[in-house]
Amino acid sequence: MQRNRFLGDLLSQLFDRRSYMRGKDDTRDIFELCQALLSAEGQVSGLRLAATILDRYAALEQNEKTAFFQFLNNELDIDAQQVARLATEYAKTPTPAVFQKLSTASEPKRQELFRRLNQPVGATQALVAMRVDLLARLKEDSDLARTNLDLVHLLRSWFNRGFLVLQQINWDTSARILDKIVAYEAVHHINDLDDLRRRLYPPDRRCFAFFHPAMPDEPLIFVEVALTADIPGSIDSVLSDHRTPLDADQAKTAVFYSISNCQKGLAGISFGNLLIKQVVSELSMACPQIESYVTLSPIPGLNNWLATQTEDERHGNTAQSTLDGTATSEEVRAMAARYLLMAKRDDGLPVDPVARFHLGNGAMIHDVHANADTSPNGAAQSSGAMVNYLYDLTQVERNHERFAMDAAVVASRGMRALSNATLATQTKE
Amino acid sequence: MQRNRFLGDLLSQLFDRRSYMRGKDDTRDIFELCQALLSAEGQVSGLRLAATILDRYAALEQNEKTAFFQFLNNELDIDAQQVARLATEYAKTPTPAVFQKLSTASEPKRQELFRRLNQPVGATQALVAMRVDLLARLKEDSDLARTNLDLVHLLRSWFNRGFLVLQQINWDTSARILDKIVAYEAVHHINDLDDLRRRLYPPDRRCFAFFHPAMPDEPLIFVEVALTADIPGSIDSVLSDHRTPLDADQAKTAVFYSISNCQKGLAGISFGNLLIKQVVSELSMACPQIESYVTLSPIPGLNNWLATQTEDERHGNTAQSTLDGTATSEEVRAMAARYLLMAKRDDGLPVDPVARFHLGNGAMIHDVHANADTSPNGAAQSSGAMVNYLYDLTQVERNHERFAMDAAVVASRGMRALSNATLATQTKE
Amino acid sequence: MQRNRFLGDLLSQLFDRRSYMRGKDDTRDIFELCQALLSAEGQVSGLRLAATILDRYAALEQNEKTAFFQFLNNELDIDAQQVARLATEYAKTPTPAVFQKLSTASEPKRQELFRRLNQPVGATQALVAMRVDLLARLKEDSDLARTNLDLVHLLRSWFNRGFLVLQQINWDTSARILDKIVAYEAVHHINDLDDLRRRLYPPDRRCFAFFHPAMPDEPLIFVEVALTADIPGSIDSVLSDHRTPLDADQAKTAVFYSISNCQKGLAGISFGNLLIKQVVSELSMACPQIESYVTLSPIPGLNNWLATQTEDERHGNTAQSTLDGTATSEEVRAMAARYLLMAKRDDGLPVDPVARFHLGNGAMIHDVHANADTSPNGAAQSSGAMVNYLYDLTQVERNHERFAMDAAVVASRGMRALSNATLATQTKE
Amino acid sequence: MQRNRFLGDLLSQLFDRRSYMRGKDDTRDIFELCQALLSAEGQVSGLRLAATILDRYAALEQNEKTAFFQFLNNELDIDAQQVARLATEYAKTPTPAVFQKLSTASEPKRQELFRRLNQPVGATQALVAMRVDLLARLKEDSDLARTNLDLVHLLRSWFNRGFLVLQQINWDTSARILDKIVAYEAVHHINDLDDLRRRLYPPDRRCFAFFHPAMPDEPLIFVEVALTADIPGSIDSVLSDHRTPLDADQAKTAVFYSISNCQKGLAGISFGNLLIKQVVSELSMACPQIESYVTLSPIPGLNNWLATQTEDERHGNTAQSTLDGTATSEEVRAMAARYLLMAKRDDGLPVDPVARFHLGNGAMIHDVHANADTSPNGAAQSSGAMVNYLYDLTQVERNHERFAMDAAVVASRGMRALSNATLATQTKE
Repeated sequence: MQRNRFLGDLLSQLFDRRSYMRGKDDTRDIFELCQALLSAEGQVSGLRLAATILDRYAALEQNEKTAFFQFLNNELDIDAQQVARLATEYAKTPTPAVFQKLSTASEPKRQELFRRLNQPVGATQALVAMRVDLLARLKEDSDLARTNLDLVHLLRSWFNRGFLVLQQINWDTSARILDKIVAYEAVHHINDLDDLRRRLYPPDRRCFAFFHPAMPDEPLIFVEVALTADIPGSIDSVLSDHRTPLDADQAKTAVFYSISNCQKGLAGISFGNLLIKQVVSELSMACPQIESYVTLSPIPGLNNWLATQTEDERHGNTAQSTLDGTATSEEVRAMAARYLLMAKRDDGLPVDPVARFHLGNGAMIHDVHANADTSPNGAAQSSGAMVNYLYDLTQVERNHERFAMDAAVVASRGMRALSNATLATQTKE
Repeated sequence: MQRNRFLGDLLSQLFDRRSYMRGKDDTRDIFELCQALLSAEGQVSGLRLAATILDRYAALEQNEKTAFFQFLNNELDIDAQQVARLATEYAKTPTPAVFQKLSTASEPKRQELFRRLNQPVGATQALVAMRVDLLARLKEDSDLARTNLDLVHLLRSWFNRGFLVLQQINWDTSARILDKIVAYEAVHHINDLDDLRRRLYPPDRRCFAFFHPAMPDEPLIFVEVALTADIPGSIDSVLSDHRTPLDADQAKTAVFYSISNCQKGLAGISFGNLLIKQVVSELSMACPQIESYVTLSPIPGLNNWLATQTEDERHGNTAQSTLDGTATSEEVRAMAARYLLMAKRDDGLPVDPVARFHLGNGAMIHDVHANADTSPNGAAQSSGAMVNYLYDLTQVERNHERFAMDAAVVASRGMRALSNATLATQTKE
Repeated sequence: MQRNRFLGDLLSQLFDRRSYMRGKDDTRDIFELCQALLSAEGQVSGLRLAATILDRYAALEQNEKTAFFQFLNNELDIDAQQVARLATEYAKTPTPAVFQKLSTASEPKRQELFRRLNQPVGATQALVAMRVDLLARLKEDSDLARTNLDLVHLLRSWFNRGFLVLQQINWDTSARILDKIVAYEAVHHINDLDDLRRRLYPPDRRCFAFFHPAMPDEPLIFVEVALTADIPGSIDSVLSDHRTPLDADQAKTAVFYSISNCQKGLAGISFGNLLIKQVVSELSMACPQIESYVTLSPIPGLNNWLATQTEDERHGNTAQSTLDGTATSEEVRAMAARYLLMAKRDDGLPVDPVARFHLGNGAMIHDVHANADTSPNGAAQSSGAMVNYLYDLTQVERNHERFAMDAAVVASRGMRALSNATLATQTKE
Repeated sequence: MQRNRFLGDLLSQLFDRRSYMRGKDDTRDIFELCQALLSAEGQVSGLRLAATILDRYAALEQNEKTAFFQFLNNELDIDAQQVARLATEYAKTPTPAVFQKLSTASEPKRQELFRRLNQPVGATQALVAMRVDLLARLKEDSDLARTNLDLVHLLRSWFNRGFLVLQQINWDTSARILDKIVAYEAVHHINDLDDLRRRLYPPDRRCFAFFHPAMPDEPLIFVEVALTADIPGSIDSVLSDHRTPLDADQAKTAVFYSISNCQKGLAGISFGNLLIKQVVSELSMACPQIESYVTLSPIPGLNNWLATQTEDERHGNTAQSTLDGTATSEEVRAMAARYLLMAKRDDGLPVDPVARFHLGNGAMIHDVHANADTSPNGAAQSSGAMVNYLYDLTQVERNHERFAMDAAVVASRGMRALSNATLATQTKE
């Protein structure tokens, strides 16, 4: 099939790129073109109209884009009174005919517009890019949130788990995609392709990404994994240029040390939970001798929280000394454990966003480490402390349930002791 | 990338097939599992729950499937009064917050259920199969049309043009897919793979199909094309075993002689228009010397219509002699032309369904032929007559527009004369 | 890389097919063209000359092909006196310069011609086809064996194990290749693709083939494997349409029940030994629970041998009753065992060619079965008896060594007893 | 087929890497192992023996490698007296039987050893690497040239044009292969992958390489092409970071500005001629509007030659001023033209090696440029001058023939005038 698959792709692209396909001679403005796409014309000439609109959109000035979104928001909204009327009718006579009218009426026309735009090669990516523009306008024009809700609703449906494809990223991957990995790495900065080689090339490194078939060159999310002998206590040791790579067959631990979302236009659509579990499953088949699946994660909110804790008599000195960099490693660990296990928001969930993500996935807090991230950013946000979240596939559902139901933070015995020890120590004084 | 792509696929499938993933030990019934999938549990264990539900569904008895659809239809419907209330509120205060509530309320929960079911490998195909079951129940329980509307709405979004992949089908295609072509051919029956060889192997034959990436072994629609010197007047000559294949470089005409939709579960979602245009485009690049793109199509409604015309004084004899098989070729052609150009439904559109399809795509009626399909089916439905619809890419939009606006049937000068000639001849008598 | 790889291939083929590349206007005859290819012209225009010669050759009449081979055999032979002179010189002064002259002189020019012919796409396959023509002429003109030696020498080098690629053949394979499997099956006839489906589609069937990258659509050799619970005693039961397929995970035995060489033009170049061992290795990784790797093989020489044994007093009656079909199963088995273990050629090797192949590969004779092949061919050649050869990868080297050194036939204890039991029984009478 | 192809590859590799396959427990030394591989043992256990020998070889010390080559050279040589005897016999009685004996006797056993070594995955590459080691020893031990002759003979047969695959190299190529392009670029240095991006990413750049299927990650030779409006006169302008890339559809000229052989182990096996012609053919199909195919080549021998010309009365001043950097552009061009057209070796061929390569391929000298390569290397070797060789596919054969027969250097009228003008100018003085 390979030849045919390719031929279809190649010809499609050539076809889509032909200039007459891009409506360069069409004198209508983008608003008229959108109305045309929604009309009967859209049924026979949808591909050309969609390509034309997407080309025009890409060339708009910033203020024109704003006007375009306002058009979507206001001109292509629902007729609420009609919806109310039909809903009332449906409540009385719930027939399919009424249901159909109500369904049609309650979906804003912009949703159908987005679907009809998604026809030429590259359209899905163009719509994801369009949402980036939209998100940038939400702060100034919060009313555009209605269009955003429709767009994210559609994207969530299109980027459904069933359509995602997991791919391993390594040195056999194309430079085009590797460029994206360099650009999208959000946790531990990568300078360039030669720097990336250090992350991908050694035999004890793995990287996996989700892709969508309509955007084959654009990773959606990726995770970098280090295969190690033991659960590591420092990102510096994991990323050190001077370490001796481990033979993959010897690894006992898989460390998820960096997870990066790639597409701003897909903000609010979560792939991380699915990715981690899929990668755990795949590694467990490829390297069955691996015993532990852990993260080595930042604690982004630690120092901010410590700063609010300085007035607290019981452990104020330790909080301050941690911030000052004068605390012992054990003190730093104790403060980190205390923060992760006990610092809660008003809704009862942990203050720390990374903790919320992993605990929400069903992971547990396994261990914390001082002097684990000596980068300026690591020092600033967590005084160098990092945390291992442990993914035990036999426990994740139970852990998740306890977290979802009771906001229970599952932690190892050592972590629980450490977080309490803090208090004990402090109250002694 | 090829290696990686494959590895991900392979491992995913192994993973998905693991028995613990299929919830064999879960004691809940399918209704409880659906509710669980819609709850918080669905967020962390969605993949497993979805796989379990789809497995359970596939094993249901017929009456249990009926109960399952009634559950979707009634238990997972909207709360119409809440929708009415929120729509009224939105009409007054069109804020994003109210819009979001209204959006959520006006979408039946079964839509979210379908989306969450679409997680394991093979789920998309399972949902398409589920719709086949649903369609079979619509006749007896027309109320299920509400669930059908939701499912087709979702499938139309998922099978958006932007996600479809055109592939050439030929003798390099896998036997697995060729088996499907044999099974799905709906116009001119194919016995088996060795019979299919006659359709695909000669150098003057082409076949193209649309696929969806989540169903890589299942064609959605395919078209069979004969490359010929002239516009053919008989399917028998096109499919004859004794013809000498033409070198593709010599072809002046591409004949679309068979178009088959493959997926009953996607009934109502139209791919034919898109497929024909894409194939015209691709052939025009691969074989730039081709001058005409025509169909050689059946006229399924001719004889039924003729039977209703026998009382008509003006051409009744010809209608009857056409039905009797005693008419001359010219008389048969004249009746066919008259039928295609003039026989209309109450809504003004042509009576003939194939005519509606091609004219709706912007094709024109080019020519009709007697003795063109001598199969029993051809004799029974159209006294052996067939028609060429012509796709002229420079005219399809204009033709479509005239058809869509005014129900105007565009036909060649010869066809117009022939359809009028009938009258002339008849009135002479 | 996939896209690029394909593009290169596609363009190369288009290029090679261009008519000016095929030398249609070149007025020289094939002999002059061969001389030109061997001259300086061959260095700059080798691709075109080679394509022209191969095209011309394919269009030759039978007697012209004979003349072509005689040209190769006589005009492009070595100058033996020059070789003798240079060899004598090298014996005295073994310098690189003399060695080079001797090397060049001792290789017939036809070898360089074959190499230079191997330039256009498809040339390797054309040369393999040329050897088919050559082999057909060997009987009548045994002198052509010199050219045959050179060609097989080159083909053996080109079809070196390091260049072969193992591929699994299944229902995802292209129809083009499956057609070849149908055509090349040499042991148990396959009617057509629909018949082949029974061999490939069930979950307890496997098929593997070696390919050469320059002939991607042409299998070189393939083996068909049945995964079974036990070691089977009958090909009829293995190929029965009515059996219930086994889940591959449940199989304890892999049965190699058919091995077919595909390319007559590669006669004399052995792939079977390599294929069996590679397939054993691959199956042992994919299905680690498999315990036994056996064949279910014909005994082609049994009845011929029995016919020569009828005069032998000791077991003449059993030999005759086996031939007559009146022997008991145990008697048939005993005769088969005796034949396989004891019937030897003058060189001490077994009479049976299939036995020589498997024993030469290091297999052992595991068991024999009566009524195992009830086809007319099976009855005629071996009175329905078949044999299992067992491949125990831990023993094949030792077995092979004993066979190669001492012509020792390794057999199971049961087989040894059975073959001796025959004598015992017979001598009792 | 894709899945199967891959699976075979993957499993083969896993299989080959198994430790028992690598003969770690085999106590024989490498010489005994080679003799075993050549013996009957090599027929049944060839794969394991070959893998073991290649592993052992790779781990040898330098002096041990020398001993290994001496073993091949002396112990596995021909028996010259036997060859002489058989050749004499064949001269008298040229039967196939004698021919076979002579063929066998006249091929050194090391050739069969090399072929038998070529069985495990990676063996071909290992043998190419072995030749690198061998070439390094030739200078000190010229007698090893005999083994070198045999190895290069075999490699030339294996790397026959018919087995090479042309691939486009671009940003969709794997990083693994791109690393090789960086490493192997021999003409205009590339720093790293980010530097390579400038060569491959812009729309007016192309790169093509030949690969062998048994070494899929190792390019054999590659050419870098710039698509330009006009024939360029300076490499600096071609490689400038500040130029505006041209749309490929607008290009009128394809400039081959760098050709690099990649495999030292394949030295003496020429791919350049084939590569250039194939690339010309492919570009002419992909970009039919291209009118000229030229190189922009260094003139490596110019300054050396000028240095020898200073005593020549007729143009000595210009030669010296060119070397000094004080000549005008026209003077530099004239000296370059004169050098390329007139400076000949004793055998009548041009002194300049790059000229010999392109003229031998059938190209003609089109133009020369001063100040074309301002790099230190360019200044040192040719005072900054460069040359365009023109490939006119309709003329290459004729040009080649004239060059091969008469050592005629084909040059444009302008170049001929320029080279004569020099004399004219000089003789005026």
